[in-house]
Amino acid sequence: MAKKFAKRMDNLKASEIRELLALTAKPEIISFAGGLPAPEVFPVEEWKAACNKVMDEQGQKALQYGPTDGDALLRQHIVERMKKVGVNNISIDDILILSGSQQGLDFAAKLFIDPGDCIIVESPTYLGALNAFKAYEPRFVEVELDEDGMKMDKLEEALKNNDRVKFIYAISDFQNPSGKTWTLERRKKLIELANKYDVFILEDNPYGELRFEGEIQPSLKSLDTEGRVIFMGTFSKILFPGIRLGWFVANPEVLEKFNLIKQGADLQSSTTVQMELAQFISDNDVEAHIQKIIDIYGKRKQVMVDAMKEFFPEGVTFTNPEGGLFLWVTLPEHMNAREVAAKAIEEKVAYVPGDAFFANEPKMNCFRCNYSCMPEDRIREGVQRLAKAIKDCM
Amino acid sequence: MAKKFAKRMDNLKASEIRELLALTAKPEIISFAGGLPAPEVFPVEEWKAACNKVMDEQGQKALQYGPTDGDALLRQHIVERMKKVGVNNISIDDILILSGSQQGLDFAAKLFIDPGDCIIVESPTYLGALNAFKAYEPRFVEVELDEDGMKMDKLEEALKNNDRVKFIYAISDFQNPSGKTWTLERRKKLIELANKYDVFILEDNPYGELRFEGEIQPSLKSLDTEGRVIFMGTFSKILFPGIRLGWFVANPEVLEKFNLIKQGADLQSSTTVQMELAQFISDNDVEAHIQKIIDIYGKRKQVMVDAMKEFFPEGVTFTNPEGGLFLWVTLPEHMNAREVAAKAIEEKVAYVPGDAFFANEPKMNCFRCNYSCMPEDRIREGVQRLAKAIKDCM
Repeated sequence: MAKKFAKRMDNLKASEIRELLALTAKPEIISFAGGLPAPEVFPVEEWKAACNKVMDEQGQKALQYGPTDGDALLRQHIVERMKKVGVNNISIDDILILSGSQQGLDFAAKLFIDPGDCIIVESPTYLGALNAFKAYEPRFVEVELDEDGMKMDKLEEALKNNDRVKFIYAISDFQNPSGKTWTLERRKKLIELANKYDVFILEDNPYGELRFEGEIQPSLKSLDTEGRVIFMGTFSKILFPGIRLGWFVANPEVLEKFNLIKQGADLQSSTTVQMELAQFISDNDVEAHIQKIIDIYGKRKQVMVDAMKEFFPEGVTFTNPEGGLFLWVTLPEHMNAREVAAKAIEEKVAYVPGDAFFANEPKMNCFRCNYSCMPEDRIREGVQRLAKAIKDCM
Repeated sequence: MAKKFAKRMDNLKASEIRELLALTAKPEIISFAGGLPAPEVFPVEEWKAACNKVMDEQGQKALQYGPTDGDALLRQHIVERMKKVGVNNISIDDILILSGSQQGLDFAAKLFIDPGDCIIVESPTYLGALNAFKAYEPRFVEVELDEDGMKMDKLEEALKNNDRVKFIYAISDFQNPSGKTWTLERRKKLIELANKYDVFILEDNPYGELRFEGEIQPSLKSLDTEGRVIFMGTFSKILFPGIRLGWFVANPEVLEKFNLIKQGADLQSSTTVQMELAQFISDNDVEAHIQKIIDIYGKRKQVMVDAMKEFFPEGVTFTNPEGGLFLWVTLPEHMNAREVAAKAIEEKVAYVPGDAFFANEPKMNCFRCNYSCMPEDRIREGVQRLAKAIKDCM
């Protein structure tokens, strides 16, 4: 046998975050490394009630095989949800239920990418997306972010200078890892360029509704003029991630292909949790729940930002996100965030070094901090420890 | 843009069964086309009790992200289950939880197959496996089945005459679609040939425990001498499929690769249903439940076989499975099972034409019948209608 495993496996290595999380599971460590939603606000009782209702009224159906595209009532609820991000003209036929939006990342690369095809990504971008895409052997082209989103002159350059660009991957709201949000102008320009250069846009929108201040931005999908935007949503951040449910919204031709991919990949997402989730949404005020999360995360973000202002030495900068779960710290150019991370672990505080979030050219002087799943006093204490580690490495 | 979608998409088309199932959903049609377990024996109350216990005692954990390899207690239960198919020497570290065993089919091809690599399959074989594999652009080599399993001389020929054979895909117990079961001798010979020709074996074992008579055969995994067998199990047929939970057992090197693939594909299977299932297994007598299913399916199989003996015209043969959910009908050579299917629909009875179950060279005169999800009188009535359709086409 020539080669034991497929060539794609050369590209796949263990997620840095997952390995780090194992290290940081010790209770004495204050970890800003994960990306977990706060479990103390999970509506456990309400979920239980929904499960009981489904089992009492439709138990056999809920435990049986179901349709590949997903539970009809759940998709109807998603039609309503999509209005919050400005998408008003869809029906349940435009939706495919996914086993978490991570599955959408895998499916998008599976649909579009032959080895050597090009994906344009933000720089930095979500590590888990890079790992999912890499299995299909793409070339990546990185386009820099500034405070307003992807730099549009650089994007047009990338589109001009690379053939076989299949799609642009964008997290336009409270990006993981940077916490940045695109302006409306940039969003419109992105659509214009995608139309001009005939490429798709993969919009990853897990955090858009978790805005602490100001108005929710219109999603890229809501600005889509030619059916080029593939929208990925998820219940992981607005409700809870353990049920692993997300969704695609896409044009009919693309969605039909995704349906075929879904059949091969896992037949369908769990009928059981889909029906339970549909019941939960029917019976509860999800908007009120989201507002509760926003209040908590907004306060935690502010505590982190305030502590960073107070304790970080000069020369260290950080983003101040208007929503989401993450902020991004930039050390002076000569510093190495991996070295600081080692020192930080000694100080019993952890984060994810930033280099893993770059597709091609890692920047070594930045890192990601999560603030969603920790009480405010631990955040303040953690930032103090972190400040000490940074100073020690300076 | 040169080509809108990846080359692999040329290979994927809608599952014949899924399309047919849509057609046959009408209540007046007696459908032998599906592959559903009988929902009337789903232990809905017991499942509900397990869910309530998990939510009461560990609700936050059950709704949160969890480990990629799966819930530890569930994997411990699987360690015990594997003893039923003769695998006694494993620990939870040898197990990866899957979102149904269909996901394992996708992962196996993703791990091993570069375009043009070879997969050896039974002829006929499971349609859903062919569709999952096709996304990775393999070559298929079919090896004929007789009453004792794969023909070993043909298998050795296939291994000799094809380079880049990556794995042999086998459903050795009550195969979907044929209902056939491999003898112990053939199983041992398969392992011997896999060792000799340095290839892996992908063992798909959803039905092994559903044996109506005789002893459960040792799984291929239990006969594995060099860590070449990748075992796929599922709860879909012994309990219920709506939760979408299956598992891999494989050697550490392979399992580590599957773990990376799982991270990219969907991060992890649902924490919620995994913990609920672990609780369910802790609190209930799963063996007694399986015995109940065996009794029901065994009776239904017998009714189908007896009715076929009574009503089918001469020249039509069929398998008489010792377990599982399916049997396989062979019409006289000159007949076409698709044409008979059209006539059968007129008679208000449905099955899946057999040609879709062949990787390369479809046989047109056979079809698959499912007997697991229908009352006995409907089975008898359906076979009568089917016999009329066959006679009309003769």
